[in-house]
Amino acid sequence: MMADDYRTSRVLAIEGVRLAAVDAGIDRRARDDLALIEICAGGAVAGVFTRNRFTAAPVVISERNLRTAAARYLLVNSGCANAGLGDAGIAAAMRCCDELAGLTGVPANEVLPFSTGVIGAPLPVDKIVAQLPRLQRGLAGDGWSAAAAAIMTTDTVAKCDSRRVPTAAGDVLMTGIAKGSGMIHPDMATMLAFIATDLSAGKEALMRLLGDGCDDSFNAITVDGDTSSNDACVLMASGKSGVAWGGLADDERGKIRDALHALMQSLAKAIARDGEGATRLIEVRVTQAASKEEARTVARTIALSPLVKTACYAGDPNWGRIIAALGRSPVERLDLARVRCEIGGHCVFENGAVSPGYDEQLAQQAMAGGEIVIHVALACGGHGAVVWTSDLTEEYVRINVDYRS
Amino acid sequence: MMADDYRTSRVLAIEGVRLAAVDAGIDRRARDDLALIEICAGGAVAGVFTRNRFTAAPVVISERNLRTAAARYLLVNSGCANAGLGDAGIAAAMRCCDELAGLTGVPANEVLPFSTGVIGAPLPVDKIVAQLPRLQRGLAGDGWSAAAAAIMTTDTVAKCDSRRVPTAAGDVLMTGIAKGSGMIHPDMATMLAFIATDLSAGKEALMRLLGDGCDDSFNAITVDGDTSSNDACVLMASGKSGVAWGGLADDERGKIRDALHALMQSLAKAIARDGEGATRLIEVRVTQAASKEEARTVARTIALSPLVKTACYAGDPNWGRIIAALGRSPVERLDLARVRCEIGGHCVFENGAVSPGYDEQLAQQAMAGGEIVIHVALACGGHGAVVWTSDLTEEYVRINVDYRS
Repeated sequence: MMADDYRTSRVLAIEGVRLAAVDAGIDRRARDDLALIEICAGGAVAGVFTRNRFTAAPVVISERNLRTAAARYLLVNSGCANAGLGDAGIAAAMRCCDELAGLTGVPANEVLPFSTGVIGAPLPVDKIVAQLPRLQRGLAGDGWSAAAAAIMTTDTVAKCDSRRVPTAAGDVLMTGIAKGSGMIHPDMATMLAFIATDLSAGKEALMRLLGDGCDDSFNAITVDGDTSSNDACVLMASGKSGVAWGGLADDERGKIRDALHALMQSLAKAIARDGEGATRLIEVRVTQAASKEEARTVARTIALSPLVKTACYAGDPNWGRIIAALGRSPVERLDLARVRCEIGGHCVFENGAVSPGYDEQLAQQAMAGGEIVIHVALACGGHGAVVWTSDLTEEYVRINVDYRS
Repeated sequence: MMADDYRTSRVLAIEGVRLAAVDAGIDRRARDDLALIEICAGGAVAGVFTRNRFTAAPVVISERNLRTAAARYLLVNSGCANAGLGDAGIAAAMRCCDELAGLTGVPANEVLPFSTGVIGAPLPVDKIVAQLPRLQRGLAGDGWSAAAAAIMTTDTVAKCDSRRVPTAAGDVLMTGIAKGSGMIHPDMATMLAFIATDLSAGKEALMRLLGDGCDDSFNAITVDGDTSSNDACVLMASGKSGVAWGGLADDERGKIRDALHALMQSLAKAIARDGEGATRLIEVRVTQAASKEEARTVARTIALSPLVKTACYAGDPNWGRIIAALGRSPVERLDLARVRCEIGGHCVFENGAVSPGYDEQLAQQAMAGGEIVIHVALACGGHGAVVWTSDLTEEYVRINVDYRS
């Protein structure tokens, strides 16, 4: 996809950003389930939120606060989505913000609340409020991994990644954490991402960087524009590197943009790879489409197909399922006789039929690893898109049957 | 949904229609996998076919033959879809038609071929041709159940149903068989239905009856207009009852139409109930929508959600998953504060939050049986739609992992 030259081998602290995590007893398991992220005064924060009309209370408040103030604190809990509770949910989230504001001495609208977990269960406000002093005392620059673990729901691994971008004005660092659980339909409480950089940038520049990056990262693992009641992605810039976005040459900006987007894509792929019950990451790459939107539609239709997902789980090069999903994609001007489909670089379908060079063993080999790449060339134009998903397994069903019990 | 007063307790033979089934060795299991249906000269036949652009060879030929001739024979095999094979697939299906035409003395375009099963595998023409004489000798009016069994793929029960409609001109009988396997996304080789009546009717009248009936039956169990490479539904009228469609009063026509549509709906629900790995039938009923199309879109979005499906499997009244699916439905003017959601008649969500009368035990009871009814009232208008689906289980995954091996 894109160059990813600035990856670091370890998680970088971002000057001006501190984090802490505690076990507040919100999730019934014994694990950290409450995280606090602090950004220094003078920093900038931008966020994108779910487009689902079923919007959780913390999303309503965070969106509003981001519009009206410069955020200083992000309070994130797992174990409860605080969604589907009407005014009571809003009041609960507000009280958490108020208490934290009182403790830290900032106005309440400088606190952004985030929640993930079960929908419909009331937020245990007292448990959260009781932990705020401990959280505040625990704030540290190296708290990224602990925070990444605290925001997990059915995730099996914490997701954390960093980049270091050298510029003429000095290095710019960026670190992000994300959580995501269900993948087939990221229906609810699915995706949270918090990214910080020591770049100096205004809110508008941040918002543009964030929005552009989402298309080929977090939005490329969602399906049908699916977003949950609680999805959110936040980008914070502390400015502590002294490198100012406004003063950078175009090529330097390009480097930072690419590194940020590669970081976002890496976190997004980590979510897909850790899809509930998943054993494999599936990359669906559509090229030669008449438009980017068409490419994305086809890629999503294939990536959504439970039959394609189970074939990937089985390592079975059942290309008929891919072509059938393609065949029902809502795309004009599709001519299956001109379509070419490859699995892991091995051509399985061309000229409207199984490829003459099709080799079952080679195709099976292409599906034997942890990542499967399905490539469909439409012969309709010059646009492309990539979507990532995970395979569909019995374990997916088990996880979602057990989730509330 | 609709009155279903004309159901009979046993499968009715339809005068003028004969059927037979044999084990031709197409499917690797020892079972009948080839069926022949004969309709008398002077009858009429109408068909609707998949809208998937990935069209199997038999569909191409059957559509063409239906346009150009009055069909006399329907040759149906399971075990092989004869899809994704280009010209070779067309030639294979044509040869089967030619051989049957030679044997029965009808022109080749009076034979309609149908196939269901694995995509990409060549049709074993010689095996099929070798069985044609035995099939012809076996033709009998009471062959419906045997034919219903022969067209099964991963179905666990044969699907067969009848209606008897009294009219002033005499009784009109109708009997149908159907097969359908995968339900979540009926991606391929999924749905075949063959319905016969002894009504006397022309092709246009039959086509209208068939098309109107599909919307609230077979198309109500498909999702996103999904149709497989091989889907087909055929309606045959032998005319042997002596009751002529053209001579009937409007109310008599209405009775026949209702009975036919009820028969089609019954077969469609049987397919959903027998969805791969399914333990429950899920009925998603959407009312108060601004349009029928909008109602259907919402119903499909909810019915498609793997999280709703797994919750139904678990018998877990996780209404948050229903509302989240509703919230991301592509529908204008949706106001979640006015939406009302019931499970099995028990209100779970209203005024934008969990219902004050929500009782977890009652809701669980409403999900404990073999059929779960989810009702969402949108408060947007006066239109409604119903979609049937099945729950998502570990067994679904197992079936689709094993399908080719």
